[in-house]
Amino acid sequence: MSDEQELRRRVLQANLDLVRLGLVIFTWGNASAIDRERGVMWIKPSGVDYARMTPEDMVPVKLEDGSVLSGKLRPSSDTATHLALYRAWPRIGGIVHTHSEYATSIAQAGVPIPAQGSTHADYFHGDVPVTRSLTQAEVEGEYEANTGSVILERFVQGQLDPAAVPGVLVDQHGPFSWGVTVEQAVMHAGTMEHLAKMFVHAAAVTQRPRRVPRFLLDKHYTRKHGPKAYYGQSPGGPAPRAPRQDP
Amino acid sequence: MSDEQELRRRVLQANLDLVRLGLVIFTWGNASAIDRERGVMWIKPSGVDYARMTPEDMVPVKLEDGSVLSGKLRPSSDTATHLALYRAWPRIGGIVHTHSEYATSIAQAGVPIPAQGSTHADYFHGDVPVTRSLTQAEVEGEYEANTGSVILERFVQGQLDPAAVPGVLVDQHGPFSWGVTVEQAVMHAGTMEHLAKMFVHAAAVTQRPRRVPRFLLDKHYTRKHGPKAYYGQSPGGPAPRAPRQDP
Amino acid sequence: MSDEQELRRRVLQANLDLVRLGLVIFTWGNASAIDRERGVMWIKPSGVDYARMTPEDMVPVKLEDGSVLSGKLRPSSDTATHLALYRAWPRIGGIVHTHSEYATSIAQAGVPIPAQGSTHADYFHGDVPVTRSLTQAEVEGEYEANTGSVILERFVQGQLDPAAVPGVLVDQHGPFSWGVTVEQAVMHAGTMEHLAKMFVHAAAVTQRPRRVPRFLLDKHYTRKHGPKAYYGQSPGGPAPRAPRQDP
Amino acid sequence: MSDEQELRRRVLQANLDLVRLGLVIFTWGNASAIDRERGVMWIKPSGVDYARMTPEDMVPVKLEDGSVLSGKLRPSSDTATHLALYRAWPRIGGIVHTHSEYATSIAQAGVPIPAQGSTHADYFHGDVPVTRSLTQAEVEGEYEANTGSVILERFVQGQLDPAAVPGVLVDQHGPFSWGVTVEQAVMHAGTMEHLAKMFVHAAAVTQRPRRVPRFLLDKHYTRKHGPKAYYGQSPGGPAPRAPRQDP
Repeated sequence: MSDEQELRRRVLQANLDLVRLGLVIFTWGNASAIDRERGVMWIKPSGVDYARMTPEDMVPVKLEDGSVLSGKLRPSSDTATHLALYRAWPRIGGIVHTHSEYATSIAQAGVPIPAQGSTHADYFHGDVPVTRSLTQAEVEGEYEANTGSVILERFVQGQLDPAAVPGVLVDQHGPFSWGVTVEQAVMHAGTMEHLAKMFVHAAAVTQRPRRVPRFLLDKHYTRKHGPKAYYGQSPGGPAPRAPRQDP
Repeated sequence: MSDEQELRRRVLQANLDLVRLGLVIFTWGNASAIDRERGVMWIKPSGVDYARMTPEDMVPVKLEDGSVLSGKLRPSSDTATHLALYRAWPRIGGIVHTHSEYATSIAQAGVPIPAQGSTHADYFHGDVPVTRSLTQAEVEGEYEANTGSVILERFVQGQLDPAAVPGVLVDQHGPFSWGVTVEQAVMHAGTMEHLAKMFVHAAAVTQRPRRVPRFLLDKHYTRKHGPKAYYGQSPGGPAPRAPRQDP
Repeated sequence: MSDEQELRRRVLQANLDLVRLGLVIFTWGNASAIDRERGVMWIKPSGVDYARMTPEDMVPVKLEDGSVLSGKLRPSSDTATHLALYRAWPRIGGIVHTHSEYATSIAQAGVPIPAQGSTHADYFHGDVPVTRSLTQAEVEGEYEANTGSVILERFVQGQLDPAAVPGVLVDQHGPFSWGVTVEQAVMHAGTMEHLAKMFVHAAAVTQRPRRVPRFLLDKHYTRKHGPKAYYGQSPGGPAPRAPRQDP
Repeated sequence: MSDEQELRRRVLQANLDLVRLGLVIFTWGNASAIDRERGVMWIKPSGVDYARMTPEDMVPVKLEDGSVLSGKLRPSSDTATHLALYRAWPRIGGIVHTHSEYATSIAQAGVPIPAQGSTHADYFHGDVPVTRSLTQAEVEGEYEANTGSVILERFVQGQLDPAAVPGVLVDQHGPFSWGVTVEQAVMHAGTMEHLAKMFVHAAAVTQRPRRVPRFLLDKHYTRKHGPKAYYGQSPGGPAPRAPRQDP
């Protein structure tokens, strides 16, 4: 299988995994991966039923200018948001956007997901941040590109590292996540949904969210990531570049 | 397959899809479609198990007077509500009623589902409205027809367009949705349930619901609908008349 | 198949349906049916895995004195509660007890499930009642028989008709339901769980539960039950005596 | 099959059961069992996909010093916590740790699961306790061993019997459970999740949790456990040593 075919297949699989993991109903989500060498992003077509999609339906989009390189299908309507993140963050290889039930609820509430425990700290080195709302001019202008801009603005202003905080809630919209691979982006989407569920459930029995102390955040994060990692089977933690077929 | 056979099959499939999507347990729901040329509505029979239904069990009802045109089965007990909506709104082609867990909960609370985010705005151009309660005279009289009347009253008084607001909560009862096709009505039923879930979950972490600004409502709605739509694969948005077998 | 074999098979199927409907995990539930002519109740054995049960494992218990008529398996530990209800209410033919997630939560909260909408009124002609707590003497004495007694006490004191209110929450314990057949008892268990879910969800968005007016309760209940019923395919409503294999 | 092969198979099955019961997503959980005669614990490898695990992947760890006895895979990163509990409590034979949605939410809230009903009392003779937070020194030192220490500290200070209280919430982390067998530890993990769900749901409709009186706690617990047990098919209650393949 050629590299291109393999990437098409992985992007399709990532989109199907979103459905399998209960993160997407109908056609409400999209996953993409990028071939950095060729400067090409592969993304789900817009509004096509998951049950009918084939690897050939994945749409190749040029990173530089957003043009569709081949095929007859339109790319996801959120394409410009994906491109904005790939351009700003050269180390990410995959992006996922969903309207998953709980993470989207928190995005609609307009609050971050607080780092309440070790599950959170295993994947996010701090709160899952929430962006500001887009202005009327931003919504009526290049809306999807501007969605990318407010994400990037949030990371710059918060001095956040997208490798250590691999997801965000766009205010009044929903979650975006990313990773070194598209498979990792899927896993981060599932993690965000789990964290959002636990935020909602804990709120039922406590008056205010409790955040873990910094040293616990550091411990769990470095247990799984970086040179001192000892989770998983490889020195330095789970190899993030290896595609997982069943995340 | 004749047009009639095809419509029977689609109405059956829509009813089965309600079960598959988790919107209906037991026999608590019904879907119908209308053949405008012949003035005939096809609807689920009353109280029949989904597992046993065949296309031939779908009951043909005359739009004009509500009479059953053939067969031995009684139509859904909510038939008169369906007919009231078809008569008032000539552009809708399918209707769905369920007692789905979350949307019915909100209907029982007697409040609208506020437009809190882009997921909402993609399908509903404003809040999902709630009707007033029926009076004792309305309940003891032609109850099901009067249920249709309070829905229509809500849309007239609120100057709501059923094409832009394709669903409603009947107070103390549950959700009704519609669409150009019965498949679209099913999708709107699933969307309402998802929006109701997110309303409940967000309520756990915020004091009061936040509504999206008008410009975001307009942006998302027109992104998917109308002449400037760019979601999906057809100019002008997803073709609402095309039946989808797997919504 | 003999009557006895058929009843064993139906009791087994009812127990399996509780698992299928998500009302029972592990072995936490039991269903029984009674042969009124012979004065014999058939009930699930205690603590046996659902996956391994056969019709022959159902335990025959004498209504009069609670003795096991044949076989080596112990009957459900809740047997005496079932017997108390069968003795007091000669028209019921099946009983179900579960620890289903939401109905048990409400039982633990010690409050009734308020009649908030038409879904409720279709099956329960008024609130789902909750019993008082058992006293220390009642718990330390014939506990399971006394559990039956507090249920009966609640119905006598509230002048409730077990045919119109086919279920109850035992305080700090969980739901019991019944019906003319065991299949109907299963359906009422599923209905109670759905009503409990909606009570919880509505509580997230409203300050206090709203109850439907008496005339709506009457309308929905009589629409499905009694001489004026017009739901389902039989005059007088759905035939409650007919066993349903797939409720 | 040798004893060792059988134990490897049971530990694998227990880990798979955690996924099947909805207690684990991705690789977020681990189950172990111990061979007391040989002083060897078998545990899930770290970060390996459940779909690919075989009995041969289970990692044998020496109880005495925590060394890996054979194979190339690293044991679960929580290994030292398991070992601490096995060393302190000689009668337990299996341990489970998950990040299950509701129990972890309560652990993150930092509160115990109150004994609110008979479902709870059937398995836990009192609240499901929560540990104190680990100090910075404990987190930065032998973190996993210290996690075991705070669990043991909680049981000593509360004079709790691990046989009567077969699980705990580690503050800001998640649930651990145990049992005479690993199958029982799995069942206790599922029970804790069910109890946590009911705690959250009841909180929606009541102001404060109600606890069952001591006599009800005693009754339900002794109904299932100890010399006077009459639940299940064996005198003295369900035989806890018998492995169950389908808990």
